[in-house]
Parts: sequence; structure tokens; C-alpha cells
Amino acid sequence: MQLFSMPSSGNSYKVRLLLALLGRTVPITDVEAKTDALAQAKAEGRLPFGKAPVLILDDGTALAESNAILHHLGQGTRFIPVDPVSQAQMLSWMFWEQNTHEGVIAVRSALLCYPHRRAQATPERLADLLEAGIAILQIMETHLSGRDWLVGTAPSLADLSLYAYTHSAETRGGFDLSRFPAICAWLARVEELPGYVGLDD
Amino acid sequence: MQLFSMPSSGNSYKVRLLLALLGRTVPITDVEAKTDALAQAKAEGRLPFGKAPVLILDDGTALAESNAILHHLGQGTRFIPVDPVSQAQMLSWMFWEQNTHEGVIAVRSALLCYPHRRAQATPERLADLLEAGIAILQIMETHLSGRDWLVGTAPSLADLSLYAYTHSAETRGGFDLSRFPAICAWLARVEELPGYVGLDD
Repeated sequence: MQLFSMPSSGNSYKVRLLLALLGRTVPITDVEAKTDALAQAKAEGRLPFGKAPVLILDDGTALAESNAILHHLGQGTRFIPVDPVSQAQMLSWMFWEQNTHEGVIAVRSALLCYPHRRAQATPERLADLLEAGIAILQIMETHLSGRDWLVGTAPSLADLSLYAYTHSAETRGGFDLSRFPAICAWLARVEELPGYVGLDD
Repeated sequence: MQLFSMPSSGNSYKVRLLLALLGRTVPITDVEAKTDALAQAKAEGRLPFGKAPVLILDDGTALAESNAILHHLGQGTRFIPVDPVSQAQMLSWMFWEQNTHEGVIAVRSALLCYPHRRAQATPERLADLLEAGIAILQIMETHLSGRDWLVGTAPSLADLSLYAYTHSAETRGGFDLSRFPAICAWLARVEELPGYVGLDD
């Protein structure tokens, strides 16, 4: 296997985090935005949807989409719950992460952090994303109040998926996480998992 | 089981389409945007992320996110391929649908069709979505050229998921599908599946 990973991206980080928690090592090719390495991987047809992460499987299949990679690597591990309803709820959070959370929290972070995105970072857009992001974080806060993990009583792929862009929502995205104590406690629980690595590790 | 469904929404339609193809009947409560039925379902806490579709399972669990519902209802049926790599590729297309396709194709359609969205339908935004949507449809066109289905040799949940907003991309979203003959042939194949129902059926 081989992982094409964008070092600064939460989507790529999810995969590196799961591999670390599983104690697995996979060769990694970095393809940061706006670099020759990314252009080359695209030109070679390695990135089916033109973006990272992509996991090249042992049979040569190029598997795109961070949460599909998590789901594939997670098969048979402790990060996928056993019962079908919990599995469905885990996928529900993961689709919500890609459909709702990432398009707001990660996009606001990208507008603030990536020089090539700054032209799009108008005050009006940043204000809209701040308002939408607070509503999104409130959904997580309400759900996590009185719960340790998003689904059931153990960490699952849903937690790893949502952790990626939530843990940097304040430092990169400008969201005040002190308003969300249940989220902060949950972030700390993820960081205590054996084998945990940070985004920049 | 009970399905909360937004009649005009492609995300809700996906679920109705799968149920029809499986020959299953589930009681449906319509919760169209901006109606009392939607407000009531939200107030009662029936919609975990504040939107439809939501499937209420037999144990009372409210399962949100269209593709998570498809995945749950699809377990053990012919719409989930048997081998793990094909399953991973199916989920990859489904996450791409929610992360990339829906945020462009469905959003352009919504801006053009829903009166309460028209204020956001500026010429610049519609032009940006048109350009992005053509690039997205081209990814599907390239992949479907020489293939009958998105994954493997049989229809899967990936096809049903992508069909929902692609089949109305021209009539609702203003995309010229005649430029994408492989997509048009694939849409026709979905429509020939036994039990098929249309969005407005």
C-alpha cells in the first residue's frame, strides 16, 4: 500500500491518525497543495478525484475519499462497532462530516490559512461561515454532553473523522472552542488514545 | 420503520428509489422545506441534523444522512458488492457525492428552483457553480466511458446515490447533459431497473 497525503489537510490527517492508532506503517508520498508533487500525482492519474488523500491498495486500486479509506482500513478493527445500528450511526456522522461540517469548518480554516485562498476570504463569507460553524459545533456539543464518544461507548471511525477538522477549528478556523466544553473534553479523550499522533507530527 | 422524506429533495429520493427497487414499503412522512411538517419534526427531535431524510429504525433510532440510510437498508442486498475493495470503491463514490457533487450540482439546482433560495442565486455564483459542475460531470463521464456501472459490473448504492442529483442536473440545474453521452446512457440503465420510480412518482 501507498498513501498520497496532503500534510496540512485534515482529510489526509484522519488516515495518518488511524494508521498510527492501529500501529500500522504505510509509505507516504506528500502532495501539498500547489506543489509539483501534487501536479505529478494528478498527471499520473493517481488521484481519481484530483485530490488527496488517496490510498493505493495492494492490487493497485486507487482508493479516494478520506472516510472511505478510514472505512476500508478500519474493517475488523476496534474502530468499527459490531452491531449494525451502531455501524449505521457511525457512517451517518461520517457522511455529515463530509456534507456539512467540512464544508464550513475546514473551508473557513482554509480561507484563513492558505495564501492561495485568501482572495475568497471576504468579511461577509467569513461571517457566514462563522455563524454556520457555530451551529454545527452546537450539534456536536449537544450530542457529546453526557457521552464520551459519538457512537456507543468506545471510539469509532466517526470520532477520528470528526476530530480532524474540529481539533483545529480554533487555531485555524477562528472558532472559540471554550464555548463548547463537551467538545473540548472529547478532543482530550481522542488525544489520550494509545498511539495518537498530531496533525503536524 | 418510518421515513421522513422531503419530496423535492434528491437526498430523500435516493432512499425512496432504493426501497422501490427492493420492493419494500415503509410509511413516509413528508417534510418539505419551509413547511409546518418540517418544523414539527425538528421540534420533536426527529431529525438529528435538522434535515431530511431520516429513517426511524424499529428500535426507535433516528438514522440521518441519505447515504448512511442507503448503506443500512442495502445490507445483504444485491446493491452492495461482495468483495471488500468494491465495497470501498462504492463508499468512495458515495462520500464524493456528498462532499463534492451535491454541494455543486444540487446547490445550483436549489438556487434555481426554490423560491426561498433565489436571493442567493447571483449571476456570479451560478457561473461558478456551472463551471465546477461541468468538471464534476466530466469525472463521471470519463469513468463511465466503457463501463455500465460506477463500481464493478452491477448496479450498486453508488449508482443510486449519484443518480439522484445527476438525473435532474439539466432540468433543474441547467447543465447540458447532451455533452455527456456516457452519463446519459448510464442514467437510462438506472431507469430500466425493475421497480424504478422517478423523483415525482
